[in-house]
Amino acid sequence: MKNRNIFVKNHPLSEALSLWEDSLNRAEFFITKRSESIRVDNSLGRITGEAVFAAHSSPSYNAAAMDGIAVKFSDLALASEAAPIQLKDKQFVAVNTGNNLPAGYDAVVMIEDVHYVNDTEVELTIPATPWQHVRTIGEDIVATELILPQGHAIRPIDQGAMLAAGVTEIKVRKIPQVAVIPTGSELIQPGAAGSPGQIIEFNSRILAGYLAQWGAAPKRSLPVKDDRESLKKAILEAVEQYDIVVLNAGASAGTRDYTNAVLSELGKLVVHGVAIKPGKPVILSIINQTPVIGLPGYPVSAILTLQLFVRKLIYSFLGLPVPEPERIEANMSRPIHSSMGVDQFVRVSLGKVDETLMATPSGKGAGAVMSLVRADGILTIPATSEGIGAGEKVEIELIRKKAAVDSTLVFIGSHDNILDIIANELHKRSPITHITSSHVGSMGGIMAIRRGEAHIAGSHLLDEKTGEYNISFIKRFLPDTALQLVNLCYREQGLIVPKGNPFNIQGFEDIIEQKLNFINRQKGAGTRLLTDKILNDLSIEPDKLCGYSHEEYTHMSVAAAIASGSVDTGMGIRAAANALDLDFVPITEERYDLIIPQKFIDEEKVLRVLALIGHDQPFQEKVLSLGGYDLRDCGKIMYEQ
Amino acid sequence: MKNRNIFVKNHPLSEALSLWEDSLNRAEFFITKRSESIRVDNSLGRITGEAVFAAHSSPSYNAAAMDGIAVKFSDLALASEAAPIQLKDKQFVAVNTGNNLPAGYDAVVMIEDVHYVNDTEVELTIPATPWQHVRTIGEDIVATELILPQGHAIRPIDQGAMLAAGVTEIKVRKIPQVAVIPTGSELIQPGAAGSPGQIIEFNSRILAGYLAQWGAAPKRSLPVKDDRESLKKAILEAVEQYDIVVLNAGASAGTRDYTNAVLSELGKLVVHGVAIKPGKPVILSIINQTPVIGLPGYPVSAILTLQLFVRKLIYSFLGLPVPEPERIEANMSRPIHSSMGVDQFVRVSLGKVDETLMATPSGKGAGAVMSLVRADGILTIPATSEGIGAGEKVEIELIRKKAAVDSTLVFIGSHDNILDIIANELHKRSPITHITSSHVGSMGGIMAIRRGEAHIAGSHLLDEKTGEYNISFIKRFLPDTALQLVNLCYREQGLIVPKGNPFNIQGFEDIIEQKLNFINRQKGAGTRLLTDKILNDLSIEPDKLCGYSHEEYTHMSVAAAIASGSVDTGMGIRAAANALDLDFVPITEERYDLIIPQKFIDEEKVLRVLALIGHDQPFQEKVLSLGGYDLRDCGKIMYEQ
Repeated sequence: MKNRNIFVKNHPLSEALSLWEDSLNRAEFFITKRSESIRVDNSLGRITGEAVFAAHSSPSYNAAAMDGIAVKFSDLALASEAAPIQLKDKQFVAVNTGNNLPAGYDAVVMIEDVHYVNDTEVELTIPATPWQHVRTIGEDIVATELILPQGHAIRPIDQGAMLAAGVTEIKVRKIPQVAVIPTGSELIQPGAAGSPGQIIEFNSRILAGYLAQWGAAPKRSLPVKDDRESLKKAILEAVEQYDIVVLNAGASAGTRDYTNAVLSELGKLVVHGVAIKPGKPVILSIINQTPVIGLPGYPVSAILTLQLFVRKLIYSFLGLPVPEPERIEANMSRPIHSSMGVDQFVRVSLGKVDETLMATPSGKGAGAVMSLVRADGILTIPATSEGIGAGEKVEIELIRKKAAVDSTLVFIGSHDNILDIIANELHKRSPITHITSSHVGSMGGIMAIRRGEAHIAGSHLLDEKTGEYNISFIKRFLPDTALQLVNLCYREQGLIVPKGNPFNIQGFEDIIEQKLNFINRQKGAGTRLLTDKILNDLSIEPDKLCGYSHEEYTHMSVAAAIASGSVDTGMGIRAAANALDLDFVPITEERYDLIIPQKFIDEEKVLRVLALIGHDQPFQEKVLSLGGYDLRDCGKIMYEQ
Repeated sequence: MKNRNIFVKNHPLSEALSLWEDSLNRAEFFITKRSESIRVDNSLGRITGEAVFAAHSSPSYNAAAMDGIAVKFSDLALASEAAPIQLKDKQFVAVNTGNNLPAGYDAVVMIEDVHYVNDTEVELTIPATPWQHVRTIGEDIVATELILPQGHAIRPIDQGAMLAAGVTEIKVRKIPQVAVIPTGSELIQPGAAGSPGQIIEFNSRILAGYLAQWGAAPKRSLPVKDDRESLKKAILEAVEQYDIVVLNAGASAGTRDYTNAVLSELGKLVVHGVAIKPGKPVILSIINQTPVIGLPGYPVSAILTLQLFVRKLIYSFLGLPVPEPERIEANMSRPIHSSMGVDQFVRVSLGKVDETLMATPSGKGAGAVMSLVRADGILTIPATSEGIGAGEKVEIELIRKKAAVDSTLVFIGSHDNILDIIANELHKRSPITHITSSHVGSMGGIMAIRRGEAHIAGSHLLDEKTGEYNISFIKRFLPDTALQLVNLCYREQGLIVPKGNPFNIQGFEDIIEQKLNFINRQKGAGTRLLTDKILNDLSIEPDKLCGYSHEEYTHMSVAAAIASGSVDTGMGIRAAANALDLDFVPITEERYDLIIPQKFIDEEKVLRVLALIGHDQPFQEKVLSLGGYDLRDCGKIMYEQ
C-alpha cells in the first residue's frame, strides 16, 4: 500500500506539446503521405491526396444551350422586324438544350424568337451573333485544367465537376484508423446491472464520437482487464492494425500503473504527467512508430487531453489545418482560483444579459459529464495566472454557436423541478433558445439580479415578520431595480423520507430522537432558511441534528442521497420525493416566484417563458403531474416596482 | 415541332414559396412528428425526438474521487502539524478513485496527505471537511432530471451523459428518405463512352450530396428514359417509399414536358415556373401527401432550386431550424445587369484587396459547374432591382469560410497555364490560401490593378515601338502606382494546329489561302494584340480571316476548340497545344510578367507566390514539363516604380 505509484512528473503544457511534436516528427508521423484511390461517387467529404485535373473537356462537344434552331449566324446578319429573313431546308435544324450543334452551324436561335411559316420554313426578325446560345467545347472545363487542388475537402459540387470532366476515380487522403481501448476491471457495459464501485463504460463512446467528428475512423474495443499481460497484448495488436491508439485508463490506481509500465516496456514513453487541470495524468508514447496515448479516466480529463494531444494528429494525417475554434469575449461572473504553474481549463455557461456576455463556470469535477453538456465554452487560465476576478474580461473558446449563446436565457436562483420543464418546452418551440440555470439558492438569485447577471431569478424567501414571500427582500436588496415579481407556483415543503417512512418520521423531533442522518441544503437557499426557522421554532440546536453540515445544492440531490440509503431524511419539495419514488411528510406550503427586471420583460426569450407559464395548458398539466404544486397564481404579477 | 410546350407561368419567388408552404401545410408535412427508437450508442448527430431524462443517478453511489483513505471527518477535526492524529483498524479504509465509499465513512483523504506509520496505522496532520473528495450520489445527474431537451442535435458528450445516467435507448427524429430520380434518354453514366449529345449523369450525385449534408438520406436511382409510362411508374413507386421525391429533368424539352404532364396527372401541381435566374422551370407538386419536386436540368439551376424549395423540408422534417448562412459585405468589381421582376442569383468570387472585399462573378451559364466550384458566395439581386453598379456595396451569402476568403489571392489578367500550378502548390502548402483568377486579358489585368481590385496582374503586352514588354503600358496606365514587375516566364506563341498539322499550316498566309477556320482571342488579350500585329505586318484584312469574330478567353479554350475539330487553328502558347496533344507552329517568344503593387508585396500570400516562383526547384520542373517555357528570368524584378 505504501508503495503505490503516487506520482508522475508534471511537464508544463507547452513543454509536453513540444516533446510530443518532436517524437511524432522522429516517427515521421507528420510527413508520411497516406493516400488511396476511390471512386468519385464515394468521395464526398474526403480530402484530395493530389491535384485533380480534367480528363476531358466539358462540354465535350458544342452544345445547344437553349431549345430552338441551329443556324449560321451570317445568314441572319441583316434580319430585322422590317425585313424578316426566311430560312428553309438545311439552313436550320431544330435542336433541344444539350443537343450536339450539327457541323456547319454556329449559332442557336431560341424557340421563343422563331416563327414557323410551316414545318420546313421559319421566319426570323432578330440578327444572331456568332456562337450565341451555344455552350462551346470546354466552356466550363478544358481537358488538363485544374479542377481541385491537393488538400481540398470535397463538396457535392466538386464531385459534379470531376464527373463532368470525365474523372471517375481519384486519390484521396486515407482516413486515420484509431483504436479506442478502455481499460479497467471496474468497467461494465451500458445497460448491464452494476453494483457500487462498478463504472459504466461510456468514455470510449464519447472519445470515438469526437474522433469521428474530426474525420477519423474510430474503433472501440471491449474493456481490457487490469492485468499486465492482457493490456500488453491489446496494445501490441492495436499498434499493428491502427494508425493511432488511444487508451482510456480506468479510474483505479492499478490500471494507471499498468499502462505506464507497459508503455515504457513496449516503446518510448515521451510524457507522463502534464501540469494541466483537469487531465494531469495523461501519458504520451510512441510504439513502433505509432502514437499511443493513455488518457486519464475521468471523462472531462479524457476529452480535454484528447483535444490537446490527439486532435492535431487526426487533421495532419488528413493533410488539413486544425480548425480554429470561434472565440468570444465575456465577463466572468464570479472569481475562479487557479494554481500558478498549471494551465486550467474551465467549462463555462454563457448568457447575454443586458448586452453583456456573462461567463459562469458550468460545474467542476472532472467526472461531471453534465458540466460539459451544459457548457457553452471553455476558458483557459494560463499557468502564469493565479486566477480570474469577478467581472474580469476573459476570452472564451465557444462550444455552442454564437447565435445560440445570444439567445440563451440566464436563470439564477433557487432550484425547482419546474425549471426542467420550462427548459425543454422552450427549446422544443424555439430550438435556438436555451436556458442556463445556476442553482445557488434564493439569495444567490437576488444578488445575481443586483449584479446584472441574470434575466430571471427564482426565489421563495419567507419574511417571518410579515409572513409575505420575497417582497421585503426585494425592497431591501433591489430597491432601485424596476422589476416584476411573477408567481410560478405554490409548492409543498417537507421532509423527504425513504419509501414507507420506515422510521415513522413526523417532524424534526423524530430525527433528533432516533439520531437519524439528516442532509441539509446550502446557506442562502430558501429551504435552508426554512429549516433553520423550524429548528429555531422548536428550539433545537443545529449541532443536535446529525448531518446538519452535510450540504447539497438542489432538492433532487437531497432526494438522491435519501434514495440511496446513505442518509435518512432531508428538507425538500414533494416533487423531488415523487420523482425518486420516496415518501414525503408535508410541513408547509410556500410561494415560489420569478423576479424579472422590467428591462428584460420584452426580450423574446422572457416573453416566451411568460407565455408558457401563463397560458399553456399542457405545460400546467405537466407541472401538476409532478405532484405537490398549486398553480392558482401561476403567471400572476405579485408585485411590481 | 410548332406545338412544343414553349412556356411555363412565372410565379414571383415569394409567391411560389408561399404557395409551396401552403400546399405542404395542407399535406401536413410540417406538423407530422416522425420519431424512431435507437440505441444511444448509434445516436451521434441524431436529433432528440423527445426530452431525455436520467434513468438513474450518476454517480449511483458515493464514490471516492481520489486515491487515498476513507475516514470519518469528525475523527480528524483537531488534526494539525503540531498534533497529528493516528487512525487504525476500522478508522480508515484504503480506497482508489471510483471505489464505493464504505458505509460509515464520510470523507476521503488523498494519498499524498497520508503518512503510513505501518500497514495498519496512518498519521494525518490536516483536518478533513465533511464529504471531501467524495463524489456524492447524483452529484452529476439525479434520476429524472433533464439531460437533453427535445430537438437537440446529439454530441459525443451527450451520448456520455445519457449512458452515465442509465439511458441506453432514446427516441430520435427519423431521417428523411429522399428519392433522387434523374430523367432523360440522353443521360449516360460517368465513365461510359459517350457521343455528342449524350450527357454524363452527374447531377444526381451533386443533389444527393447536398441532401446528405443537410441531414437527409438520399437514394439515387438510375435515369428514367423519356417515356411517359416509365416516368409515371418511377414516380408512383418513389412516392410510396420515400418522404420526399426529387426529379431532375434531363436537358431535353421532351423530358420537361413529360414531367409536367405526369405530375399534373398524378397529384396536385402547385407551381410550374418561378421568376428566378437560374432555375426558372422548376416544378413543385404534391402526390399522395408527398412533396415531389421537378428540378431543372442544368446543374446550377438544379442546385439553386434544391436549396430554395427542398432544403427547408429536410430541416423541418428533422425538427430543426434552417441554419442561417454567414453573410458578408463586399464591393462589386463590375456591373451586373438583372431583369426587373426576376430574382437573380449570381455566383461570385471574393478577395480582400487592400482591406476592401471585392466580389466578382465567377462565371455564368447554368451549366457551368466550375463557376460554382470556384465561387466563394452567392449574391442575390432582388426582383425589384435592375442590377448592380460597379463599386456598389452588396451583401454576399458565403459558401467558403470567411477566413479562407480573407486569405484569397486575387489574380486578374492574362491567362497562362502556370497559374494552375501556382494555385495548387499554394493550396498544398497552406490549405487556407486560395487563388481566384479572372482571365480577362493583359489590359484587363492592368485596369484591375488601377482600380485596386487585384493583388497581382499577369501581362504580356508588347510595345511595338520599344520592343519591350509591359513597361510602357504600366507607365501610361499606372503612373502613380508603386509596383514591381516580376517576370514569370518567357513562352512560345504560335499557331495551335491539329495533331500532324494536316493542313500543313506554316503561317497566317496558309490559313487565308486554304480558307481554314480560325478561332480568335478576346479584345484586350495580349495574344489578340499579337494576332492583330501579325495580320497588320502581313497586310491581311481581319475580315479575310474566317472566324476572326469567334472569340475565346483562354489559350486552353482555343486549344479545346481545335482538338474537337470544330475549328482548324488559333493563336496560343505551346503549353496549351501540348496539354491537349496538338501540334504547334512557333511564331515568336514573348515575355509574361506579374504586376504587383508594392503595398501587397509583404502580404503573406504574395510572399508565398514569390518564394514559389523564385526558389522552388520542383515548381520550376513542373512548369518546364508543360513545354514552351523558358524560366531564365523567373522571379526577377524587371522593373520597379
